[in-house]
Amino acid sequence: MSQGDYRVADISLADFGRREIELAEHEMPGLMSCREEYGSDGGCLKGSRIAGSLHMTIQTAVLIETLKSLGGDIRWCSCNIFSTQDHAAAAIARDGSAAVFAWKGESLEEYWECTLSAITWPEDDGKGDGPDLIVDDGGDMTLLIHEGFKAEAAYAKDGTLPDPTSTDNAEFKIVLTLIARELPGNPQKWTKVAQRCFGVSEETTTGVHRLYQMEAAKTLLFPAINVNDSVTKSKFDNLYGCKHSLPDGLCRATDVMIAGKSAVICGYGDVGKGCAQAMKAGGAIVYVTEVDPICALQAAMEGFRVVRMESVVARGDIFITTTGNKGIITEAYMSQMKNNAIVGNIGHFDNEIEMEQLMAATTRVNIKPQVDRFVYPDGHGVIVLAEGRLLNLGCATGHPSFVMSASFTNQTLAQIELWRERESGKYARGKVYVLPKVLDEKVARLHLASLGVELTELSSEQADYIGVKVSGPYKPDTYRY
Amino acid sequence: MSQGDYRVADISLADFGRREIELAEHEMPGLMSCREEYGSDGGCLKGSRIAGSLHMTIQTAVLIETLKSLGGDIRWCSCNIFSTQDHAAAAIARDGSAAVFAWKGESLEEYWECTLSAITWPEDDGKGDGPDLIVDDGGDMTLLIHEGFKAEAAYAKDGTLPDPTSTDNAEFKIVLTLIARELPGNPQKWTKVAQRCFGVSEETTTGVHRLYQMEAAKTLLFPAINVNDSVTKSKFDNLYGCKHSLPDGLCRATDVMIAGKSAVICGYGDVGKGCAQAMKAGGAIVYVTEVDPICALQAAMEGFRVVRMESVVARGDIFITTTGNKGIITEAYMSQMKNNAIVGNIGHFDNEIEMEQLMAATTRVNIKPQVDRFVYPDGHGVIVLAEGRLLNLGCATGHPSFVMSASFTNQTLAQIELWRERESGKYARGKVYVLPKVLDEKVARLHLASLGVELTELSSEQADYIGVKVSGPYKPDTYRY
Amino acid sequence: MSQGDYRVADISLADFGRREIELAEHEMPGLMSCREEYGSDGGCLKGSRIAGSLHMTIQTAVLIETLKSLGGDIRWCSCNIFSTQDHAAAAIARDGSAAVFAWKGESLEEYWECTLSAITWPEDDGKGDGPDLIVDDGGDMTLLIHEGFKAEAAYAKDGTLPDPTSTDNAEFKIVLTLIARELPGNPQKWTKVAQRCFGVSEETTTGVHRLYQMEAAKTLLFPAINVNDSVTKSKFDNLYGCKHSLPDGLCRATDVMIAGKSAVICGYGDVGKGCAQAMKAGGAIVYVTEVDPICALQAAMEGFRVVRMESVVARGDIFITTTGNKGIITEAYMSQMKNNAIVGNIGHFDNEIEMEQLMAATTRVNIKPQVDRFVYPDGHGVIVLAEGRLLNLGCATGHPSFVMSASFTNQTLAQIELWRERESGKYARGKVYVLPKVLDEKVARLHLASLGVELTELSSEQADYIGVKVSGPYKPDTYRY
Amino acid sequence: MSQGDYRVADISLADFGRREIELAEHEMPGLMSCREEYGSDGGCLKGSRIAGSLHMTIQTAVLIETLKSLGGDIRWCSCNIFSTQDHAAAAIARDGSAAVFAWKGESLEEYWECTLSAITWPEDDGKGDGPDLIVDDGGDMTLLIHEGFKAEAAYAKDGTLPDPTSTDNAEFKIVLTLIARELPGNPQKWTKVAQRCFGVSEETTTGVHRLYQMEAAKTLLFPAINVNDSVTKSKFDNLYGCKHSLPDGLCRATDVMIAGKSAVICGYGDVGKGCAQAMKAGGAIVYVTEVDPICALQAAMEGFRVVRMESVVARGDIFITTTGNKGIITEAYMSQMKNNAIVGNIGHFDNEIEMEQLMAATTRVNIKPQVDRFVYPDGHGVIVLAEGRLLNLGCATGHPSFVMSASFTNQTLAQIELWRERESGKYARGKVYVLPKVLDEKVARLHLASLGVELTELSSEQADYIGVKVSGPYKPDTYRY
Repeated sequence: MSQGDYRVADISLADFGRREIELAEHEMPGLMSCREEYGSDGGCLKGSRIAGSLHMTIQTAVLIETLKSLGGDIRWCSCNIFSTQDHAAAAIARDGSAAVFAWKGESLEEYWECTLSAITWPEDDGKGDGPDLIVDDGGDMTLLIHEGFKAEAAYAKDGTLPDPTSTDNAEFKIVLTLIARELPGNPQKWTKVAQRCFGVSEETTTGVHRLYQMEAAKTLLFPAINVNDSVTKSKFDNLYGCKHSLPDGLCRATDVMIAGKSAVICGYGDVGKGCAQAMKAGGAIVYVTEVDPICALQAAMEGFRVVRMESVVARGDIFITTTGNKGIITEAYMSQMKNNAIVGNIGHFDNEIEMEQLMAATTRVNIKPQVDRFVYPDGHGVIVLAEGRLLNLGCATGHPSFVMSASFTNQTLAQIELWRERESGKYARGKVYVLPKVLDEKVARLHLASLGVELTELSSEQADYIGVKVSGPYKPDTYRY
Repeated sequence: MSQGDYRVADISLADFGRREIELAEHEMPGLMSCREEYGSDGGCLKGSRIAGSLHMTIQTAVLIETLKSLGGDIRWCSCNIFSTQDHAAAAIARDGSAAVFAWKGESLEEYWECTLSAITWPEDDGKGDGPDLIVDDGGDMTLLIHEGFKAEAAYAKDGTLPDPTSTDNAEFKIVLTLIARELPGNPQKWTKVAQRCFGVSEETTTGVHRLYQMEAAKTLLFPAINVNDSVTKSKFDNLYGCKHSLPDGLCRATDVMIAGKSAVICGYGDVGKGCAQAMKAGGAIVYVTEVDPICALQAAMEGFRVVRMESVVARGDIFITTTGNKGIITEAYMSQMKNNAIVGNIGHFDNEIEMEQLMAATTRVNIKPQVDRFVYPDGHGVIVLAEGRLLNLGCATGHPSFVMSASFTNQTLAQIELWRERESGKYARGKVYVLPKVLDEKVARLHLASLGVELTELSSEQADYIGVKVSGPYKPDTYRY
Repeated sequence: MSQGDYRVADISLADFGRREIELAEHEMPGLMSCREEYGSDGGCLKGSRIAGSLHMTIQTAVLIETLKSLGGDIRWCSCNIFSTQDHAAAAIARDGSAAVFAWKGESLEEYWECTLSAITWPEDDGKGDGPDLIVDDGGDMTLLIHEGFKAEAAYAKDGTLPDPTSTDNAEFKIVLTLIARELPGNPQKWTKVAQRCFGVSEETTTGVHRLYQMEAAKTLLFPAINVNDSVTKSKFDNLYGCKHSLPDGLCRATDVMIAGKSAVICGYGDVGKGCAQAMKAGGAIVYVTEVDPICALQAAMEGFRVVRMESVVARGDIFITTTGNKGIITEAYMSQMKNNAIVGNIGHFDNEIEMEQLMAATTRVNIKPQVDRFVYPDGHGVIVLAEGRLLNLGCATGHPSFVMSASFTNQTLAQIELWRERESGKYARGKVYVLPKVLDEKVARLHLASLGVELTELSSEQADYIGVKVSGPYKPDTYRY
Repeated sequence: MSQGDYRVADISLADFGRREIELAEHEMPGLMSCREEYGSDGGCLKGSRIAGSLHMTIQTAVLIETLKSLGGDIRWCSCNIFSTQDHAAAAIARDGSAAVFAWKGESLEEYWECTLSAITWPEDDGKGDGPDLIVDDGGDMTLLIHEGFKAEAAYAKDGTLPDPTSTDNAEFKIVLTLIARELPGNPQKWTKVAQRCFGVSEETTTGVHRLYQMEAAKTLLFPAINVNDSVTKSKFDNLYGCKHSLPDGLCRATDVMIAGKSAVICGYGDVGKGCAQAMKAGGAIVYVTEVDPICALQAAMEGFRVVRMESVVARGDIFITTTGNKGIITEAYMSQMKNNAIVGNIGHFDNEIEMEQLMAATTRVNIKPQVDRFVYPDGHGVIVLAEGRLLNLGCATGHPSFVMSASFTNQTLAQIELWRERESGKYARGKVYVLPKVLDEKVARLHLASLGVELTELSSEQADYIGVKVSGPYKPDTYRY
């Protein structure tokens, strides 16, 4: 483990990381354009402190260095214990791009320590030791602040400390333990962090869902920009990213031939759509499970068999959960699967698969890192990828650079908006926003040239005819693409 | 021509029409379910007058007879001069399902006379001779009322009659002529029609666009429900309907082999997406033209070459316009195409292709109905389908029953809403509404069983986890599917 | 019915036929190239009599006129009672391109009379009244000669006439009746026809199969060229032709939406492969039945479910037989299908479906030409296309021009070979041949330019390295493509 | 480096190898069935010595252990310097399944030493120190024997030793050096090896091509079975294997997003077909280069643009050569490519790409193992995978187990045939054979059950009708599938 104002697996991987970062820059035209457009005069983020909690990959390294080149002072952690690419982290640490706290294979305790480190600047400049801006993925960094804030309020009232035994959730126990440990020594930390923060830009469906819940409950402590629902994020990263990275993860983990297999995709949202397409393209027989009748009808129109899990559990060779919900692949289902059926999650949290129940019911045989066979007493086993966490990050390298460039250009534009408008009141505390369509279209525009796309321009007569400006936006906000 | 309180091409086609209507009923489970659910006690539309302007096809016949079975008193015309299926019209006329005024190959003058007939009840019951409810497609019936209303206001003021020479648009000249002719004899007709009308449900992008313009200009005279933007309409009919009916129209019109050809799809909205997929599936090399950078990036991600027309005009074998805009395939482009290049429109109005300019520049050779070769002086020609109007309706039979069942179940639910809430104020004059998501999901739900789809049900624990009800709706209104 | 030295449905359709023939010429570059290359000095078929039995379509018209332009004297009939396009036949008849005997909807008796007319020249020039060369599709013309020859031998021996009651096969009864009728008046007719004939070129799998059987039994009376097994025939026409014309036939016959339906394709040879691909592309769930384990494994690798009919008969919406075998879709299966299941044949003979048994068990309701609903006593019915004969020809227009150009260029080259080598002994009586690979490659080459294909040329060093000539052939005869 | 009567990278990887071998067994039903069917009584290969030169992967380990379980005594090397999976080799070595000489990243000298070791039994039992049977891939082991034999003849005549300076080919120099070194000490070695050998079964197109050349030149010293041209090999492994492993190799090497990229596939044989399909499925714009007009027309029918390299070299992002020919991607082409264009070979030898010329013209920057950027003086570079050798083996793990099971079951059946018939004369020295179709069908049959395929059985009536046996074979030898 290498350490300074960073903690990474092996700083000597920095050269390798740097070479891959350079290749990735070539594939991330949106971010590189931002460096040019917004980087002059010290950059439009000059003076800002940015804390990020987002898979510490090569692509994220290009995001970090983009924010850095716009003037940001950056601290970073990963948002998943398996998703860090250690050579990426090493390059970022060695070259001083950010203070980074991330390695592949963190324990859950280490994970939350890293989050704490990433959010805490070594010096308190009087405005609190936290960031001005947050880049979040899944909302863990935001959660820590809000839990800390809540605990400080209770503590201020009557000295109560959070009680880890109050929850069954193993991970939440760790969060409460950490907050309880820090609270007596710094009883205003989170309150000041929350006050200082000008906003968070959130990457994923799950994190956004949490934000809207807090907005509704009026507990959200700063403004938030929902990056996930930019068209150039959710209709690209979720769909095309997963279409790419599901087979990649399956291949690296298991080398299994997809052609001829029966693949069951649980959920037919954007992620599920990409996964189902990828399995079909690979020659699998694809089954889809779905609760939403509209998505189910879409799946049917594409030629996918839409079934309930119990109809297909004994027939499937590959089971992938994509839902963002929990309890999708239960232990009871796994007990009925064929020997060596492959089970993976590309949705969000590891509770999509009943891992705890599975571990209780079986013996675990590790095949190689991130690939385990869980063997039932009767001798049949299932192969679970990445311990039920995101298989594309755990078993492969996540989404490819190009599609992440679209997502991260949205992040960059969101950070710029939050910083630029920090005093204007445009983004109010407690509210969740999406980026205006014209910025969404801008993100797309920045990715066309490198693909050789020729965009047609409306004549002003045509623009008038359909009631838009020649320069866009071209669609109403409700348009579904 | 056969006539009564109807006007159709040949009433003797009624038996054939009836047999095809019966087959179509089997493919339209949403409509058949509505007959069951809403048809008792005379039907929930009992007492209503409904006027429709919508392609008079077999599928529309099932819609008409659904509205009839719910109690409606119905008059109908087509919304396109080529789209009527004469055997469908004959069956509807003979069996008294509606007073229908429609045949394939109307002149433009006849077209507007039919619209007038469909909107005018023989008796004026004191509330005006118009309908209580309108089903519109493209907005022509709504346009006629609004233009009539405008003309009556001017006439009331100072006796001015509409002046057909005030416009260059050949079709609009006809509209003004017709209004001017009727005005002196019935100077309050349109004013009373507008007052009586409880609302219109509109089928298409183009018609909806007109409605929003009128809403913004505060000139819309009654409430409107935008059926087009139900997910189960625009993401199904536009996409899967066109995916089906583009190749169908091309084959029936030209028998051309799609494999190996270069196809240029102008526009990559839902219609363009369906068309591009269909041409790809048929083995064509597909080019896409697009003005919206987001849609362009989607096309690129699917492996389509996105180009400007001028880059591809000399290479394409098949050119299809899908935009809803005008002047897309100009005469100048057509003059540069390969000999026997095929040109067709599946977007909306025939001004997507510069037909007038083409006719002026070439000699027309009719190959068969709806298929013409326009020959330039240098001997090369282009083959234009359906005179530049909707090729899937002009050259084939439009969208298939199943997908129209989804669209028309939305229409039926919209009509029910407008009639049920006619006194409640839920739908205000001058405003445009979409159906609530729960009805959208209901439409989908009604189409699952016939495809053998098994829908999964959320546990209440899962529903709570993602913050929805077990019975839906499952997604926020902004969800894009 | 219009007649001269021809018999067609309506000679007034000739103009329409001519216009479509001209469009088809544009799509048939191989045939048009042959006219140029082989048409000078009266054409390389000058002096030959050619009789053809092959679907009398627009594409066949271009073949006929190609053979004519090479100098052939031509008589023609269709090889299927439903496959004639009457406007094509009319143009050929009126313009004297061939003496043609064909119309859509012949009775079986008429069919065999037409075959007799096509094979019989009005004058006997001393070498018999038959042709020098035969173009056959399915082998009916060849069968008639061989049955005639056999009958003449028996008659010569002891005056025996063929006995139509000796067979259960309704169609074969007609053949025997016809031979018996003609025999006494012209007892050497078929013997002389067989002697005169320099060979037949056969189009289809089924016809070729019959030829190899006769070769093995040493009963084949003249040389035969197996055109079906040219790569540019079987891997193009069978595969890409059917991929195109199956959905075309389904749409024109039933307008049914393919997306979401369950389609069962019986057989996964080239025809089945094209059909399965087309249904998948249309969004159907595709099931395949197959007896050959290699083809079955291919289907599995492409993601198709390979099942026995009994597993899927109650679930399918569309059943298509592609096998060339018999008894594939039995009446027992049809009795178990869903109401309004669609049943069609794109294989070869109508005995792929048990039509006689079906007719016995049900009541027939004709929906429109070539589309019937057969209703069981319990009220459920199946929709059978083209009375169980080839649905793509009966319900649509068969394969598109471009792919037929490849097949028919093979036919043309085969006819040229047989005529050129008529005295050389290169093609021996009683033997079946395939065209040499270099001609096969030539056929392909003639179709590249119109698609804009750029062919790479081997350097002589590269050609040496892989042991071929720069000009080809490039593959061993066993290569599978 | 670990050594005994083996040489592998690290014997401690054996446990990991064993776990992956066990998983692979589950995916290789054909091989596992052979163990059952042919393994009793010591196995049907009892007493045989088998030498193999074939990528030493996990899948090959299952083949080796199958041959072992049938009684073979086995020695093995890899047929590519990068293709060994070290954990597979370790398990085979440790568990005594074969004497294996293979590791990832051999030098060319080491490679040929390994080949020599694999072919040389430590004891000479009087019949020579070589094998009874050879499993070859690409023909290097066969080449060594034939070159050794040739050299011994020359040496016997006049004491001439092979002269490494007589060739420009760097690798062939090494072969001659090795033979020259061994010759004086053992001047009859290769002659005896050749005499003893009952035959070779060859895996690939390239090796088979060499064998047919030797057969034609009458220099082939023993019988050969062409496994490559079994349908269940070339139409599965080449096609579906490469469809799977090309994107896998690209992803592992470069993480590049395939969607939106322009991919150029050189060659459209079975390998090229699989590669083009994979890139299309991934959302790339696919270009194909081809010299054979038939294959080119196939590519066009599938919607691929067929171009010459010079038309597309400046536009492509990914270039893959699949030809088995040489000089396909020249240095001149690479100098014109876009910066960071990716270049890879999935055909056969590394001379498909002009690697030597590229190295001379550029500076090499190693990104990670098997991935190099070759930078031109002007700063633009190309990324070459696996040093121009097989990228799917060098950068990923080659073809997946299931498809290799089909190929290797053919190998196993070929070895059994050669051994069983070693005295019968069925397979003559100097001749090349393919397996009979009934064995080919058997291979397919053994792979159906694990995919859940239900095979239909012909009735005897149906079998008679098409002239085959109920049990097969079902197709003539010329059938192309």
